[in-house]
Amino acid sequence: MASPLDSIKPNVRAITAYTLNPLEAPVKINQNENPFGMPVAIREEIIRRALTADWARYPDFVPVRLLEKLSLYTGWPSNGIMAGNGSNEMIQTVVQATIEKNCRVVLPEPTFSVYRQVINVAGGEVFPVLLNSELQFDLPAIELAINEIKPVLTIICSPNNPTGCTISRNELIKLLDLKSGLVVVDQAYLEIGGEDFVPLLRDYPHLVILRTFSKAMAMGGLRVGYCLAAPELISEFNKAKMPYSLNLFSMIAAEVTLERQHELAPLVEAMARERDRLLTELALIPGLRPVPSAGNFLVTETSIPPSRLFEQLRAHGFLIRDISKSPMLANYVRISVGTPEENTALLDALRSIFKHQ
Amino acid sequence: MASPLDSIKPNVRAITAYTLNPLEAPVKINQNENPFGMPVAIREEIIRRALTADWARYPDFVPVRLLEKLSLYTGWPSNGIMAGNGSNEMIQTVVQATIEKNCRVVLPEPTFSVYRQVINVAGGEVFPVLLNSELQFDLPAIELAINEIKPVLTIICSPNNPTGCTISRNELIKLLDLKSGLVVVDQAYLEIGGEDFVPLLRDYPHLVILRTFSKAMAMGGLRVGYCLAAPELISEFNKAKMPYSLNLFSMIAAEVTLERQHELAPLVEAMARERDRLLTELALIPGLRPVPSAGNFLVTETSIPPSRLFEQLRAHGFLIRDISKSPMLANYVRISVGTPEENTALLDALRSIFKHQ
Repeated sequence: MASPLDSIKPNVRAITAYTLNPLEAPVKINQNENPFGMPVAIREEIIRRALTADWARYPDFVPVRLLEKLSLYTGWPSNGIMAGNGSNEMIQTVVQATIEKNCRVVLPEPTFSVYRQVINVAGGEVFPVLLNSELQFDLPAIELAINEIKPVLTIICSPNNPTGCTISRNELIKLLDLKSGLVVVDQAYLEIGGEDFVPLLRDYPHLVILRTFSKAMAMGGLRVGYCLAAPELISEFNKAKMPYSLNLFSMIAAEVTLERQHELAPLVEAMARERDRLLTELALIPGLRPVPSAGNFLVTETSIPPSRLFEQLRAHGFLIRDISKSPMLANYVRISVGTPEENTALLDALRSIFKHQ
Repeated sequence: MASPLDSIKPNVRAITAYTLNPLEAPVKINQNENPFGMPVAIREEIIRRALTADWARYPDFVPVRLLEKLSLYTGWPSNGIMAGNGSNEMIQTVVQATIEKNCRVVLPEPTFSVYRQVINVAGGEVFPVLLNSELQFDLPAIELAINEIKPVLTIICSPNNPTGCTISRNELIKLLDLKSGLVVVDQAYLEIGGEDFVPLLRDYPHLVILRTFSKAMAMGGLRVGYCLAAPELISEFNKAKMPYSLNLFSMIAAEVTLERQHELAPLVEAMARERDRLLTELALIPGLRPVPSAGNFLVTETSIPPSRLFEQLRAHGFLIRDISKSPMLANYVRISVGTPEENTALLDALRSIFKHQ
């Protein structure tokens, strides 16, 4: 054997390494985080509880208390819930449990890049279905793809990152009724917008829902995600998940956060309100064409090349996301919703930038 | 499609779900944890630093500060280090990057069960090589297996969980010189015992070393593991790893722990000393035959059936591990090293149990 790289699977070697330059800026609106941060009272309660635990001991094998609280929060039984290290781990687990070499996955694109990454690692084949020209899910095309390709998985991100479009209950039912493989709906941004599909789980055992604490719940740094599905599916997924993947501290944080939803709700409402304000105001800036979004982020077409707009905003102190390498989005940037002050300042900066074009 | 389970890979369905009954006992010596817990001063510094961070923000894409500290600690360059969610995630990542359906893995057994789990999920084939009759690595048999099977991976846990045996530098070099696939050495217990193989990395680019903060570092609950290998291999492994898998809090905890090794060193020394005391004292109890170990745990043969000894010790307030379903270990239990007081009490309980046989 000449090189240790010969041991790496060809499908992994073929992946371009994902990197993110660790850029700093006074206003960070590039990762769809909760811009208000975690309320101080919640942080204090997390610390208080964490100090009563022995950090040298492994976390619970099954995080029973958290699952019970998630059951109350979502209305789905706790034996149909799996929690772990961010919704990234949930995506990885579902894919590892279902996809092997040459298995097919229907994936609307552009969307969150981690889906393709884990499918590639598993050796699966992605059949992308582009959004329509309004950057909405192209339901007829997705149905056609499912019928023709007979995928093991169809993955729908709703609200979709980065475009903010959603799938409706009736549209999702149409896909589920095709009964070809599992339909995974990633609802990472559900608290901010889109329909809750948990009520469909009882009638559609092929439906898998992914959720997260990283967005509305202000826990991006602590990495907790969860998966809702038929208990028999959750049992299988758990075999593909690493034991103890949810650390003690993040588990406690998720529990406290669920108990204190009333303290987070006003922040979530503010995010939705500010997103709508941004949409309205951005549309008035000549050179920008923002796309309606149900998330705490939006994409906008820009008459200035995205890489240049990115740099100009950085010079003004704003870190946004240049998504122009995504299919269909060569002329778009993604902007996360900031605090009201940050959004006002952003609008001022954009008005100034586009005035001088 | 009749059942959603049809979408699950056959190799995942075939896995028996791993469960651990959440039993409680005053003395928990079943998971090879640091029985002394994390020193209070270290905990306080972690909390202090964590409070300066915004928990709603994603952690660093590359945990640069932690990797630099790990580089200083291990003596290996930071671009040859990957850190993540416990050494479980490191094992999973290495396997996902290398193993697809029918790929072969040489695995000495009995050993840590997660290796087989992730290999099974990836669709790989395990070629077990049993330990020899002294429960030591059977080097000639491992060499033979590697030569015959030409595995993609050989995985050696040293010190081996649960038996505590180690591979020596010269033995490892023999395996590396066979140049068949990667040789992964899991050194989760290195701080407690066994030789450090980092100095071999420079000459053997097929060597991969796994380490953890869960044992000596008293961070079992916080889940931080890391992987050391040639930078070109680490780049490939990172493609198979989920981004942001190391949460902010655990990352800070690992940094503080590395800075404060002097506070942990006495605890680690005490674990090794107490393990040796347990070995000596257990050997004097008629009915027990403990096996020398380099970890903070040991296995002992028992004249009382393991499941009964487990229950009798539970009645005395001790939770040990019944490992009798492992190959070769039908008459063995595993005992983690506790605090000096716990070990003394355990020895008393065992003397009493075996006296009444």
